[in-house]
Amino acid sequence: MVPSGAMTLPLSPRIQATQTPPIPAVREWAARYDGRAGPVLDLTQAVPGYPPHPDLLAKLAEAAGSRAAAGYGPIDGDPDLRAALADDMARFYGARLTTADVAITSGGNLAFTMAMSVLAGQGEAVMLPTPWYFNHRMALSALGIPCVPLECRAEDGFIPDPDRAAALMAGVRAIVLVTPNNPTGAVYPPAVIARFAELARAHGAWLVLDETYRDFLSPAQSPPHALFADPAWGEGFVHLYSFSKAYCVPGHRVGAIAAGAGFRVELMKALDTLQINAPKAAQAALAWGVKALRDWRAANRDLMAGRAEAFRRAAAQLPGWRLDSLGAYFAYMRLPDDAPDAVALAERLAVERGLLGLPGPFFGPGQDRHLRLAFANAEESVIAQVPARL
Amino acid sequence: MVPSGAMTLPLSPRIQATQTPPIPAVREWAARYDGRAGPVLDLTQAVPGYPPHPDLLAKLAEAAGSRAAAGYGPIDGDPDLRAALADDMARFYGARLTTADVAITSGGNLAFTMAMSVLAGQGEAVMLPTPWYFNHRMALSALGIPCVPLECRAEDGFIPDPDRAAALMAGVRAIVLVTPNNPTGAVYPPAVIARFAELARAHGAWLVLDETYRDFLSPAQSPPHALFADPAWGEGFVHLYSFSKAYCVPGHRVGAIAAGAGFRVELMKALDTLQINAPKAAQAALAWGVKALRDWRAANRDLMAGRAEAFRRAAAQLPGWRLDSLGAYFAYMRLPDDAPDAVALAERLAVERGLLGLPGPFFGPGQDRHLRLAFANAEESVIAQVPARL
Repeated sequence: MVPSGAMTLPLSPRIQATQTPPIPAVREWAARYDGRAGPVLDLTQAVPGYPPHPDLLAKLAEAAGSRAAAGYGPIDGDPDLRAALADDMARFYGARLTTADVAITSGGNLAFTMAMSVLAGQGEAVMLPTPWYFNHRMALSALGIPCVPLECRAEDGFIPDPDRAAALMAGVRAIVLVTPNNPTGAVYPPAVIARFAELARAHGAWLVLDETYRDFLSPAQSPPHALFADPAWGEGFVHLYSFSKAYCVPGHRVGAIAAGAGFRVELMKALDTLQINAPKAAQAALAWGVKALRDWRAANRDLMAGRAEAFRRAAAQLPGWRLDSLGAYFAYMRLPDDAPDAVALAERLAVERGLLGLPGPFFGPGQDRHLRLAFANAEESVIAQVPARL
Repeated sequence: MVPSGAMTLPLSPRIQATQTPPIPAVREWAARYDGRAGPVLDLTQAVPGYPPHPDLLAKLAEAAGSRAAAGYGPIDGDPDLRAALADDMARFYGARLTTADVAITSGGNLAFTMAMSVLAGQGEAVMLPTPWYFNHRMALSALGIPCVPLECRAEDGFIPDPDRAAALMAGVRAIVLVTPNNPTGAVYPPAVIARFAELARAHGAWLVLDETYRDFLSPAQSPPHALFADPAWGEGFVHLYSFSKAYCVPGHRVGAIAAGAGFRVELMKALDTLQINAPKAAQAALAWGVKALRDWRAANRDLMAGRAEAFRRAAAQLPGWRLDSLGAYFAYMRLPDDAPDAVALAERLAVERGLLGLPGPFFGPGQDRHLRLAFANAEESVIAQVPARL
């Protein structure tokens, strides 16, 4: 742990104004739990609860043991992985995509920071629907990019409203949407995504879609949008992806950006400066896995859908609580009216009942009556224990 | 390749003003070489020419094949690696350093960007001696942090002059020194480093030392400075490190930052936002390697010293060329007076003679009579061929 208030020279006001990483704070609460209600149920972090495929682990080991993976690689990624991802995306979105359209990054978070540094200059703002993914907000803050919050409402299923967004577009250089959403799990309908694309275009702004959880969409929800069908998609649309969730490899740090040629010219500078190359061994293994593990990914998608339904059943037993949104990895629950605010309640649940979730205020303004529970890393038998802890 | 000039919405003027990654440009020159002078001699990139230790490759494979390495890890690094590095630094610098003092990053480049975003706010400048490491300059540009160049002169052996720096300190939030230096190879004397520390302190600025190449200092050059001996070092000094060079693992992306408690509180936000965690498999393997490969590293240091001497002998045969600086991985050579400018000459050497080096202007202003040759990745027999190509 790092003591605060230590003597030091001045530091950037931007970083000082940036939110503290939330997950370690919750882990500190958990350290005060005495076990009285049973083992800790950790529903804080968006990690799958099952291991990577054993063949992927074998490929990771093989690649990491090679001299080739120890050396520098292409700035924008291993061509084999870029080709595999482009092919997978082409199938998934029903669009023409090629190796040239994608770049590989050291994780999805770095992909976001790099995309923002490419498209937003001094004083230009980026719109984030609330509740937002906290690392997105932190990245904008650290980069000094003003954030325009777009309030999403429980009564809309936390789907952002393009009409409300239209009134807030002054000075906005980009709109960022996360779908399936973190923290709410909401899946934005294709028509809503299309309307945001129109809105962005009308204002000369970029539309950035973070589709980290797209592999967990049901066949009925796919393709999630038709943006890639426009041959000129790259002139105003940027897609972000992470291999962490679909392949269970967050520790290996591999993500991706799909963007048009004009964007990629500038992106190369950010890639070279911030990462040099994404970790090579994981790229080599994933270049194999994207195609080979397609069925495995589909089975996990179904497993996650089962956990979502188990969570829905569990939540239905809870008087006072309201399941406002559910999908992909997350349930976003409204607290009972007589509960304290979400931060106080989350701390109490952690310390007294060993149930770890992230309180709404970690995801932005207006969230003090909500709690995010990431059920992805819990088996159905564990999910069934949640009501007794809440 | 990415075509330039494609249709696109506006992008950040900061990124547009950022230099293009230089090494791919030189590789493009090399693609036009027809082989007439023999195999390509690639002296562009700072990579060791020998493989990682076989036991390290085995440890990398073992870790990468584990489920543990696939999951998220601590934001500021694997405690075992932090402890191993702190112990290694304590021995090397003859100072008291502990696990708490160091954080692990996804490579040395990201360490630099994160350190800059922590210490420089809007409008605050950072001083870089010239010639600079191009990715440092690119990072400042992309972050919108003004750069104050400090000219280093060949007649000073490219050692920066604290007196000249003192006249340029207005608005400077940090001084960044790279020693052993990239691109010149110059090793800054401890007394010079101490004077820069005094200068920074007198102006309320941070001193940032990038010591990526410190493992290649001779025993006579170690410890390279006494800054860590000051119990209050963390109040104004930040140390950057990379595992890429010493352990031959640039493809795995692992670096480090040593800083005081006040700095680390804010650094945690940048670490969480940009990297979440450094790649875990490589951290696990390096946690073993830092101590176990100490003798191996020392042997490579001697090997590199031999290559430097081989380069010195080779350079002595060259009429007109002047070896202005030599050390660690790099030779920084002054072109003959009758040669064209460095960019034109570097292109000609690549296209006509298959010798790849980086021209001085890639490293900042005033460098158009110099060429950087990274001899680290060439065996002595290859180095002996250099004069015939120049």
